[in-house]
Amino acid sequence: MSYRVGIIGGTGYTGSELSRLLCRHPDIELAALTSRSNAGKDVTSVHGFLRGYTDIKFTERISDTKDLDFVMVATPYGVAMEEVPALREQGIKCIDLSGDYRLKDAALYEQWYGKEHSDPEGLEKAVFGQPELFRERIKGADLVANPGCYATSAILAIAPLMKSGLVHDDVFVDGKSGTSGAGMTPSARLHHPTCGESVIPYKIGAHRHQPEIDMAVDMFAGSHLDVAFVPHLVPIVRGIISSCYFRLKKDASQEDVDAVYEKQYGAERFVHYVPEPSIRDVVGSNHAQVGSKVLGNRVVSFGVLDNLVKGASGQAVQNMNLMLGLPEADGLDFPGLGV
Amino acid sequence: MSYRVGIIGGTGYTGSELSRLLCRHPDIELAALTSRSNAGKDVTSVHGFLRGYTDIKFTERISDTKDLDFVMVATPYGVAMEEVPALREQGIKCIDLSGDYRLKDAALYEQWYGKEHSDPEGLEKAVFGQPELFRERIKGADLVANPGCYATSAILAIAPLMKSGLVHDDVFVDGKSGTSGAGMTPSARLHHPTCGESVIPYKIGAHRHQPEIDMAVDMFAGSHLDVAFVPHLVPIVRGIISSCYFRLKKDASQEDVDAVYEKQYGAERFVHYVPEPSIRDVVGSNHAQVGSKVLGNRVVSFGVLDNLVKGASGQAVQNMNLMLGLPEADGLDFPGLGV
Amino acid sequence: MSYRVGIIGGTGYTGSELSRLLCRHPDIELAALTSRSNAGKDVTSVHGFLRGYTDIKFTERISDTKDLDFVMVATPYGVAMEEVPALREQGIKCIDLSGDYRLKDAALYEQWYGKEHSDPEGLEKAVFGQPELFRERIKGADLVANPGCYATSAILAIAPLMKSGLVHDDVFVDGKSGTSGAGMTPSARLHHPTCGESVIPYKIGAHRHQPEIDMAVDMFAGSHLDVAFVPHLVPIVRGIISSCYFRLKKDASQEDVDAVYEKQYGAERFVHYVPEPSIRDVVGSNHAQVGSKVLGNRVVSFGVLDNLVKGASGQAVQNMNLMLGLPEADGLDFPGLGV
Amino acid sequence: MSYRVGIIGGTGYTGSELSRLLCRHPDIELAALTSRSNAGKDVTSVHGFLRGYTDIKFTERISDTKDLDFVMVATPYGVAMEEVPALREQGIKCIDLSGDYRLKDAALYEQWYGKEHSDPEGLEKAVFGQPELFRERIKGADLVANPGCYATSAILAIAPLMKSGLVHDDVFVDGKSGTSGAGMTPSARLHHPTCGESVIPYKIGAHRHQPEIDMAVDMFAGSHLDVAFVPHLVPIVRGIISSCYFRLKKDASQEDVDAVYEKQYGAERFVHYVPEPSIRDVVGSNHAQVGSKVLGNRVVSFGVLDNLVKGASGQAVQNMNLMLGLPEADGLDFPGLGV
Repeated sequence: MSYRVGIIGGTGYTGSELSRLLCRHPDIELAALTSRSNAGKDVTSVHGFLRGYTDIKFTERISDTKDLDFVMVATPYGVAMEEVPALREQGIKCIDLSGDYRLKDAALYEQWYGKEHSDPEGLEKAVFGQPELFRERIKGADLVANPGCYATSAILAIAPLMKSGLVHDDVFVDGKSGTSGAGMTPSARLHHPTCGESVIPYKIGAHRHQPEIDMAVDMFAGSHLDVAFVPHLVPIVRGIISSCYFRLKKDASQEDVDAVYEKQYGAERFVHYVPEPSIRDVVGSNHAQVGSKVLGNRVVSFGVLDNLVKGASGQAVQNMNLMLGLPEADGLDFPGLGV
Repeated sequence: MSYRVGIIGGTGYTGSELSRLLCRHPDIELAALTSRSNAGKDVTSVHGFLRGYTDIKFTERISDTKDLDFVMVATPYGVAMEEVPALREQGIKCIDLSGDYRLKDAALYEQWYGKEHSDPEGLEKAVFGQPELFRERIKGADLVANPGCYATSAILAIAPLMKSGLVHDDVFVDGKSGTSGAGMTPSARLHHPTCGESVIPYKIGAHRHQPEIDMAVDMFAGSHLDVAFVPHLVPIVRGIISSCYFRLKKDASQEDVDAVYEKQYGAERFVHYVPEPSIRDVVGSNHAQVGSKVLGNRVVSFGVLDNLVKGASGQAVQNMNLMLGLPEADGLDFPGLGV
Repeated sequence: MSYRVGIIGGTGYTGSELSRLLCRHPDIELAALTSRSNAGKDVTSVHGFLRGYTDIKFTERISDTKDLDFVMVATPYGVAMEEVPALREQGIKCIDLSGDYRLKDAALYEQWYGKEHSDPEGLEKAVFGQPELFRERIKGADLVANPGCYATSAILAIAPLMKSGLVHDDVFVDGKSGTSGAGMTPSARLHHPTCGESVIPYKIGAHRHQPEIDMAVDMFAGSHLDVAFVPHLVPIVRGIISSCYFRLKKDASQEDVDAVYEKQYGAERFVHYVPEPSIRDVVGSNHAQVGSKVLGNRVVSFGVLDNLVKGASGQAVQNMNLMLGLPEADGLDFPGLGV
Repeated sequence: MSYRVGIIGGTGYTGSELSRLLCRHPDIELAALTSRSNAGKDVTSVHGFLRGYTDIKFTERISDTKDLDFVMVATPYGVAMEEVPALREQGIKCIDLSGDYRLKDAALYEQWYGKEHSDPEGLEKAVFGQPELFRERIKGADLVANPGCYATSAILAIAPLMKSGLVHDDVFVDGKSGTSGAGMTPSARLHHPTCGESVIPYKIGAHRHQPEIDMAVDMFAGSHLDVAFVPHLVPIVRGIISSCYFRLKKDASQEDVDAVYEKQYGAERFVHYVPEPSIRDVVGSNHAQVGSKVLGNRVVSFGVLDNLVKGASGQAVQNMNLMLGLPEADGLDFPGLGV
């Protein structure tokens, strides 16, 4: 049996990455991609890499396509909360890849996103889609808020250590992201002459993934987290490494720390605790790597992933698999590029 | 049924890329990777991206593994011609990804590779592995010489136009390759501070892919070709674009040229004639793109591919599929990264 | 004595590069930079690299600054031909770094730039500012049209060989430019995720530097040139290499070709004929390198430079020095970065 | 009057950068570059960017050149402590750009560099060459230990804040360096396919610049520092940004922190406290930028510079100017590239 999946926002990077993954998912039919600017055009005329993998055309609205079983929202924030209520009424399960449903608190949403939340009911029902931490909740969810790319990389590195009680709650996160994480709209910062030979800190203490990291770790570890998050743009296309800096609460050895992560991720298909996490090992794939090193009375932990796959569209497919009762790795079971 | 495949030279880039592709090939068991320096180690301890996809260890010699059905040689040149004769005696089909069996003429081999060829019998039997041009011969071959990365990109752009008779035989090939094409051994030219912000012409008129382009186009088009090949190193990891410059023999329109390529590639799974060929569309995949533009009484044609996939290991898998009677796209049927 | 120089268009890349060079020119006072969007702001608040080198503010119009001796126009095309006539009336010498005065023929301008030329008088008087080819004319000029970056790199490689009579007139120019050559306005092609790991051919046979190469070589060599120019964007910030492909008219050795270039450039301060031209050797400086290699009955020649210096603002300063009777290398006498 | 300066180790990156700077220093004659592998060759045959700026040849030993007034040692560590004693006997002032004289304690040297220090007398006399912190001592020195590139960037950001008493002493330093910082010897990590599209943490808690940061901050601020230093390789050629993470000891506002840095650097020629420090603003020049942002009860400060200039050879020239009684900015008084 094949589920018919539609994507709202099929032109942007997370939308096109979803289509890359779904077009060869064994249980999925890629049934719809919406795009206001490209409606009516062949998808392959815009996404040349899909030539031979789909013959559908962009539509203007998701409602232009009938009999969808599942919808992914891959638009900028603010759109999902307008689209999701109608889909909920039709009983269509959804994953939102934008930030609309990540922060459980509508007031927090307004504070960080600068607008009132128009779907408080959805906000309450939405489950935070980090499968390695909240797998069971995701299985039963009708609406999943897919985490941000920085947030995923940081949460994977931070959450187990916070839960272990080994570290203080004031964590520094030095995030380093490839440029595709910022989306497809040209801007001064993403202009190659600006960023191609530079490393640029930005949105210091003001990035929307900060409250998300905070909230997710709190939910998982049951203890308050105080994140100071400083994102940096680095001149690579795909890939994130978040270097997370902790102070140890009590004496802990490298072995103690290793044990915490091994226990958490030892049985996971997509998250690996390794001695030297590497962006090249995971790029192009849904795999993430976590590493950690004790430095006297402090610790640095790394979370490494491809921002468009495990940091966005791949994790969305993983969540969809869980929500539909499919094998969790379906359509995602391939390694990173390595080189 | 599953074929057991071994790789001689499992540490280098083409060997590791073969393992990336074969580990999820539906009809293949990745049975052996040799490596003198890593013999005895888990493959995943060296190739971290394979974690979860194989549990074999590197062996020293290919003969350490029994019951192989097929062998790929992914070493530097000079090794294959030592290894292949023994495999031939055992009736094991082989693909050589090095240059040992590409030039049919032993004297030409000696001229370009600087050593005598030690397996003239193999040289005679070997079939040049460009599936889109020589598919039928490959199907019946026991030994296939897998083309070079530059050569593949140039041949795909040049061969149809030469066969059409529209152009003169003195072609300029301006090749631009990502750095992974040069292999995994560190060198001054591949040192990041040298090449990271530069474009470096090298081996001008002296690159080994030149006689290969010459030979393959002659074989296909039946007319002599005189290539002036100038390779340039560009600071990307994966990807090649060969810009091929022709003079038109007679008046020809853009439509005439388009028709030549459409006829050649219209039904191909992995080679696409497109208006704007793009490295990003094909990178990570076995797809190649060809484009062409008439400029008055001249033409420029582009051949674009991922040097490690369609330019090496992916094309080898495609050839292996043909040689084993498997569907040609098995294990390769996924799109490029797009972004 | 110090000349007061103003720059129309002080925000863009060629304007800011002019200010970088002029702020430490021994005979120049950087007296004005115009910018509509930044008028009234400290120049250093926009160009942080000038902190400590100037304390002037952006002005709206060049006429806001009195007693200028010389004006550079560093705007997009179409502006210079509106500004220059007024400056000419005031007897102020000018260099235009846009394309407005490069093509001597107003009809050709209209064809390539898509608008009527509004200053035919200036067009007639303007001298093409390639100092190594037209030094004497530049010395006497009141208005100089500074060549384009691609054009400079190609002309330096092509002109001497064409003049020698050794080669046919149908030249292919495969241009490879860093991204700063395209200016500071963000665009889809210059967006890092698009171009950061790719090589992108564009404006094939349609780039405005094509008629410029044609015209300049004709003027210098006295023979018609037929250029097929294919520009490629490469993911470096600064630097151009133009690979120029010729057919030899008659037998010529490497020594013959070397002699042609040595004779042309042997005494030049900024253009060097070298065995292996290198972007890293010239980047950041006004130096250019030319190299050439005979390949049987054909030749490839390379022109290498920093597109913002010898390809734009540095060459403009060199021209200004000639026009003002200053030592030609003043303010430019420093080497490239090397690494 | 012109001082004759020699460079021991003229082939490597810091040596060639010294020659780039010294060849146009108004008071210096670049009199000698040593190189065992290139002895006898023209310097410009190896360093093409110096064509036109020097006509000397490499020599084997520094003693091959007579009447030197000053010597820079730009070799790997371990060489300077063999060379410096003989120069000291001749009364020649020296700057060592390697790590041999940075750590005042011979035991600490042995611990971090793995060999016994052979010149304890020099170690005692050597002055740590951070001009903005130790200017007066440098003026009187005969031997200066030039700081490391990471160390300089971190010390500039850390030292004033530590001295202010506003922050705790446990600082995290997340260093991000361009690849030229690792020197000119090819290696697996610096191989473009490895690092060109990645960010690689390395030598975690084990980098030799760690005790150097520690020592220099202690000397300046008079309080013990506990640095956890995690260097990351980023795919740019030149440039470092060190992001330094502090906890505030007591309530402090952004204004308080700004005041600390303004007071320290307000009058400096080469170090600027700015709102948004930028690698592009300083690259190619001896300028550094420092920025800082309060995040609740924590602070992040950035130190940004060109690792080969302010992080190595430029700072060495600055120190040399101080030691010789020359204007501090001589030969260094030019801005960064900006783009």
